[in-house]
Amino acid sequence: MPHLPEHLLTGYRNFMSGRYPAESGRYRDLAREGQAPETMIVACCDSRSAPEAIFDAGPGELFVLRNVGNLVPPYAPDGEFHSTSAALEFAVQSLKVKNIVVMGHGRCGGIRAALDANSAPLSPGDFIGKWMSLIAPAAETVSSSTFMTATERQTALERISIRYSIANLRTFPCVSILEGKGRLSLHGAWFDISTGELWVMNKDTGDFERLEMA
Amino acid sequence: MPHLPEHLLTGYRNFMSGRYPAESGRYRDLAREGQAPETMIVACCDSRSAPEAIFDAGPGELFVLRNVGNLVPPYAPDGEFHSTSAALEFAVQSLKVKNIVVMGHGRCGGIRAALDANSAPLSPGDFIGKWMSLIAPAAETVSSSTFMTATERQTALERISIRYSIANLRTFPCVSILEGKGRLSLHGAWFDISTGELWVMNKDTGDFERLEMA
Amino acid sequence: MPHLPEHLLTGYRNFMSGRYPAESGRYRDLAREGQAPETMIVACCDSRSAPEAIFDAGPGELFVLRNVGNLVPPYAPDGEFHSTSAALEFAVQSLKVKNIVVMGHGRCGGIRAALDANSAPLSPGDFIGKWMSLIAPAAETVSSSTFMTATERQTALERISIRYSIANLRTFPCVSILEGKGRLSLHGAWFDISTGELWVMNKDTGDFERLEMA
Amino acid sequence: MPHLPEHLLTGYRNFMSGRYPAESGRYRDLAREGQAPETMIVACCDSRSAPEAIFDAGPGELFVLRNVGNLVPPYAPDGEFHSTSAALEFAVQSLKVKNIVVMGHGRCGGIRAALDANSAPLSPGDFIGKWMSLIAPAAETVSSSTFMTATERQTALERISIRYSIANLRTFPCVSILEGKGRLSLHGAWFDISTGELWVMNKDTGDFERLEMA
Repeated sequence: MPHLPEHLLTGYRNFMSGRYPAESGRYRDLAREGQAPETMIVACCDSRSAPEAIFDAGPGELFVLRNVGNLVPPYAPDGEFHSTSAALEFAVQSLKVKNIVVMGHGRCGGIRAALDANSAPLSPGDFIGKWMSLIAPAAETVSSSTFMTATERQTALERISIRYSIANLRTFPCVSILEGKGRLSLHGAWFDISTGELWVMNKDTGDFERLEMA
Repeated sequence: MPHLPEHLLTGYRNFMSGRYPAESGRYRDLAREGQAPETMIVACCDSRSAPEAIFDAGPGELFVLRNVGNLVPPYAPDGEFHSTSAALEFAVQSLKVKNIVVMGHGRCGGIRAALDANSAPLSPGDFIGKWMSLIAPAAETVSSSTFMTATERQTALERISIRYSIANLRTFPCVSILEGKGRLSLHGAWFDISTGELWVMNKDTGDFERLEMA
Repeated sequence: MPHLPEHLLTGYRNFMSGRYPAESGRYRDLAREGQAPETMIVACCDSRSAPEAIFDAGPGELFVLRNVGNLVPPYAPDGEFHSTSAALEFAVQSLKVKNIVVMGHGRCGGIRAALDANSAPLSPGDFIGKWMSLIAPAAETVSSSTFMTATERQTALERISIRYSIANLRTFPCVSILEGKGRLSLHGAWFDISTGELWVMNKDTGDFERLEMA
Repeated sequence: MPHLPEHLLTGYRNFMSGRYPAESGRYRDLAREGQAPETMIVACCDSRSAPEAIFDAGPGELFVLRNVGNLVPPYAPDGEFHSTSAALEFAVQSLKVKNIVVMGHGRCGGIRAALDANSAPLSPGDFIGKWMSLIAPAAETVSSSTFMTATERQTALERISIRYSIANLRTFPCVSILEGKGRLSLHGAWFDISTGELWVMNKDTGDFERLEMA
């Protein structure tokens, strides 16, 4: 008997009877020829913001890094284990993606934790606390903006963190060089779970603008 | 003009005209009530192994961490930034997921890099090299198994790395305690990109067995 | 009273009342004209992997050599008694078979013995130990792959031994010459006792691929 | 594309659509619990004398060694590679079979070669010549029995060789000890390809008697 949660077994059977037969040739080609995605997405682990769903993406289309809060730490070639930097290096240097999109989303639990820095750690290791401290200076400033509502502070920090991650992307030499040559472009996006709206970052101003569906 | 790659704009329009209207109530509920996924998936960034596709999962169903090679490093409460540990802590302590599935896949580029440890680093930071060195002892052993074909070595290390990550999950006190109490279960799975087959780890032996579709 | 085990007497009566009458003409022709099988199979003695069952083969179809582990030793014209080489010579030079298939199988006791080389010999002659030492170098390498499960090591060595036997077939001048002329082709196959699956060796890579039944 | 002769592909498909479904439970059990055949058969490679067909045997029933002429060489613990002795040791010591049947057959090409010892070797290695020389003293005597017809000489040597192999079985200490204890019994049989008749050796006289079908 296979040990998998029942909902995954059911889901996989749906996949094999539905989507897979329709895309089996594509999977087979991708297996033989390797992946060649044009775009890397840095997204959050949140169960409500799957990039493949939001961008209706098929196999081979998106190289997806997901961590809590869709954060990219700054470049730090210190010999430590950096899962985010490793994924970035692989996408840019090996797969030669043309786009990197940092996609945040509303009601992000990681951002909420960053805004509530005085709460007790989730466990003695306090890994979330440490991880979200990457945006601690911004989180502290936003937390003290008491004229904003809790929701406004949350949305503000979600967007700040996207700009922060994009700025950190540019601390990686390979990213900044390729961006300078016009061979790589960086994007920001924010997904509103409640309405399905996608807000896209204006590259000039850093503002987020709702995508018109025309 | 929004700055997003054209294929993402197209995909998002498909989402808004197709999947979203059918699931808008679910998104709205998930926004209001928060996520409560039963299952965390640790998967690879690879564009051909999206957990939501393979498990036909809708919004709110899967909390998904994705890094290169679907690796979980061992517990190390050292104050460093650990994106994987942070996601794990959040899933277990805050979301109280009931299952964690480590899902690897065939033809994994990260595993290939680990098997080819003598190749030049992708960039001066050598982040992939460092990240994949988590499984260096196994990679060295498998690399020296020259009686096996390149594909056999690759598959062997892909499965070893899943067992390794599951073993590391158990080094986290919160995981081992909850597993001991029967409130959290750990699973391994391996996806064959070429055929769509899912192989599930036998908990007793560590072997991977193909899921019967019957 | 004939001295035969009861189950063989029963089986033989079934043969004479069932299969034989249906194929008596074929047996008669084969007796008169001699055998002219197109294919030689090198298989294991294992009671669960009879080539005639797996290939639904009738009388006259398969010339079958069976030894423990389906091994072909390398060419050694040293004047010793070589049952395997004798069968090979007879099949190729006298019967002029067009194909030789080396067929291994899962859960092979001979392969298990090779992986467990430190166990006590079965008898003072240690014939199994000596026979399986033909693949000792590979067995030692695989045995030391402790990151693999016992089943993974077993399957790996089963497949290695098939490739080894095929390589040894080519050390026989008559085989390599005829193969070079396109008059003899060599194949590898691996039978999964548990599922009935047949995995066929890819001649280019040496990998084993499951036969699609489609 | 799998590289297997077409007739094997067809045969395997017949097996999977016919016999396997009817016996899948038995295969599965045999895989899980291991083989435990009661009987070892030493038979010839000849394509017309498959033991599983003649004894209507299912998976798990017969442990089958097949070489040219169904010969068992005498016990020789000399450290050389002895495939026949290895199979015998495995059957008796590890599987603990209760019966060993040496089954010869009519029109055996190996026996014909032994009777025709002055013919040119099949190849420079002369493996068949060397292998069949195991019964050279009997072959020379029979060859010189010019009052017998060629067919009579052939049948005579086929039966002599069965008795010879049974005698050699008893040179293996493990065989003679177990036979003495009544835990192993040895049998001889000869299959007439043309008529389907099975002749069984009388243990007391060594004569072969046709099995009555009652």
